[in-house]
Amino acid sequence: MYTCSEKRMEDKIKTFSKFGDTGHGGITRYSLSKEACMARAEFKKRMEAIGCTVVTDDMANMYATLPGTDSNADKIMAGSHLDSVLQGGNYDGVLGVMTAMEALETIVTEKIPHKHPLTAVVWTNEEGSRFEPAMMSSGVITGKFDKAAMLASVAKDTGDITFGEVLETCVYKGSEANRADPKKTCGLVELHIEQGPVLEAEGYDIGIVEGVCGMINYEITFVGQADHAGTTPMPYRKDALWACAKTLEYLHTECDKLDKKLVYTTGKIYCHPNIHTIIPDKVDLTIDARHQDPAVVEKVVAIIKAIPTVVEKCQVSYQEAWSRKTVKFYPEYVNYVEDSAKESGYKAKRMYSGPGHDAQFMCDIIPTTMIFVPSVDGHSHCELEYTPVEACTKGATVLMNTLLKIDAAK
Amino acid sequence: MYTCSEKRMEDKIKTFSKFGDTGHGGITRYSLSKEACMARAEFKKRMEAIGCTVVTDDMANMYATLPGTDSNADKIMAGSHLDSVLQGGNYDGVLGVMTAMEALETIVTEKIPHKHPLTAVVWTNEEGSRFEPAMMSSGVITGKFDKAAMLASVAKDTGDITFGEVLETCVYKGSEANRADPKKTCGLVELHIEQGPVLEAEGYDIGIVEGVCGMINYEITFVGQADHAGTTPMPYRKDALWACAKTLEYLHTECDKLDKKLVYTTGKIYCHPNIHTIIPDKVDLTIDARHQDPAVVEKVVAIIKAIPTVVEKCQVSYQEAWSRKTVKFYPEYVNYVEDSAKESGYKAKRMYSGPGHDAQFMCDIIPTTMIFVPSVDGHSHCELEYTPVEACTKGATVLMNTLLKIDAAK
Repeated sequence: MYTCSEKRMEDKIKTFSKFGDTGHGGITRYSLSKEACMARAEFKKRMEAIGCTVVTDDMANMYATLPGTDSNADKIMAGSHLDSVLQGGNYDGVLGVMTAMEALETIVTEKIPHKHPLTAVVWTNEEGSRFEPAMMSSGVITGKFDKAAMLASVAKDTGDITFGEVLETCVYKGSEANRADPKKTCGLVELHIEQGPVLEAEGYDIGIVEGVCGMINYEITFVGQADHAGTTPMPYRKDALWACAKTLEYLHTECDKLDKKLVYTTGKIYCHPNIHTIIPDKVDLTIDARHQDPAVVEKVVAIIKAIPTVVEKCQVSYQEAWSRKTVKFYPEYVNYVEDSAKESGYKAKRMYSGPGHDAQFMCDIIPTTMIFVPSVDGHSHCELEYTPVEACTKGATVLMNTLLKIDAAK
Repeated sequence: MYTCSEKRMEDKIKTFSKFGDTGHGGITRYSLSKEACMARAEFKKRMEAIGCTVVTDDMANMYATLPGTDSNADKIMAGSHLDSVLQGGNYDGVLGVMTAMEALETIVTEKIPHKHPLTAVVWTNEEGSRFEPAMMSSGVITGKFDKAAMLASVAKDTGDITFGEVLETCVYKGSEANRADPKKTCGLVELHIEQGPVLEAEGYDIGIVEGVCGMINYEITFVGQADHAGTTPMPYRKDALWACAKTLEYLHTECDKLDKKLVYTTGKIYCHPNIHTIIPDKVDLTIDARHQDPAVVEKVVAIIKAIPTVVEKCQVSYQEAWSRKTVKFYPEYVNYVEDSAKESGYKAKRMYSGPGHDAQFMCDIIPTTMIFVPSVDGHSHCELEYTPVEACTKGATVLMNTLLKIDAAK
């Protein structure tokens, strides 16, 4: 088994953490921003230094390819994204790029033979922090999103520029011909931080990601009647917040009867008129539910649909905001991740991803899988996001060996 | 028994509804605004026309006094306020002024003998809609509020002017010597709409207001931990909104065991970060509770204080935002209201006021009581606020006869 270099991994983490450094432990690195372009330049410089050819496509996705011994063989890809949320951490996305870089660098340094060209890839605008939606560019090249609509996406912070306008002035905008080609690519592996507490809490080094959980997101609305807090006897009231509280109790009780891997979240509540001396007449509540088994997600939908139309004298209605089907990764490659972890002596756990990743779109056109490494305390999308360099290097090693297993098999 | 004129009452309601007319059924008439000054001018004109002398004090409170047969007798007052909330109705406050006007007009028209001078009064800035606090001027003349602090109150809507600055340019600013004088005033009666549904629902014409409920207002805070909706298994969660829902259940269950006249309201909720894919880490909830018996209010406080410090793994804390003690009106005058209603054949119910009124401050220095008339569907502080002219006139009649009973007794 080959092993990646902890020292080189540490150097990469330190270097990339400078691009968009907030000064207090994290980064703000919006896609195609000056900071993101500095990170892209570093990626290009380092990949060219180890013998890669770097090209970009029309969505500014970057592909740094190391030739294999068979020039006709299909490519094997690994990578993730370099952009972050506002005041995000130094691992979400960029670690998938850095471990791909480290895997290729180890292969070059250790002169590890491989037949297939190996490509480190950077997907543009995964977070959708400044230009919505998230996973924009993997979405465009897999046909999930309409490119023209994506180019028209307006900056959420300033409202004065579109994604297309920013892309036009970016040196990393290349040609559509350079897009990842499913006909000439036999595999893709994305490493990512877990963004949750499970691997660390249960003592695992590696998450063998079998797929991405399906999810539903509903908005539930309660309509009561606004009346004066001091003049309306309790029996006359139609309190929308009380109807919401009763429904929260119902949702928890019923959802807790389902599979223990189910996660559901009521994260957003809007109360009107939200004045301490007025009985609330309208409350909107969101519920997000995710599970790898579509049947379990359907059960949650059934629970939502079974909410009575009248709760505590308030009218209740619901509507689906959006949903996502479960994505299953390529089983053969999932096994390679497991085998690679085992051969290196790392403790690994099969799991599903709750959050979305570029890999779930790419999986539609290229055999794909993912690798997770632990997130300390489960923190993510914040400056506290942290994965020790030892854990990152283990991830890089598993990534590299998975790529080599694909190389050997195809 | 003397009876007020429905025709004159209708004319008054129609006339005063023009001052600040929103064009869709209600008014916006901030205190001392142009619209409020038009209403004041109408009040002055009409009261002078029936033989009253109109003076104003240093807070622009207006006093229109009709002489009695004994020039040394103490005054008897009746009135309320002319200002409204934003997009308020045509009855809250102004009906108390219009019924006082109508009572005096009937006394003049019918040549009803009375010993005491009778004063129709307009209190300045009861609503506190533009300049906080509510009940500002009755508060100043009863020593509840510091006058200098009140003059420094800044306009909530524009932030560019103080109440004192507006008062300085107002023709209705008069002298401190004209303030209602407890030594020369033997009674005050304020008629007001109920602002709640009880009188109408139970078929009563008149509310005999025995006092104003004491109240408490607490803010309860739940602190959990913000984590990703897709990556955090249920057992790891500290969901502040769930802790809040459980506490709402507890508050309702416990408060519902107390007296049925208790009203409690959880009207305002703040959830952070309030994003559908993030577990809430902080929720603030308000609770307002009112009852005429301080012991019942104290029981609610005990219920709040008995909330566990940890609910669903979230930290819970609370603090009192403000409170008000129960105010009891002058029992003899409360009886006069009851007798007056009975003698006119109106159905009347003894009750406490939930909302605050100028009368509760004035009660500290002058023997005071209140009369309620029904609010259709309980609507108040909105353009739907409505009391039929027949009901308003019944209120005026009870008010007039109550004043005459005080006149006869003192």
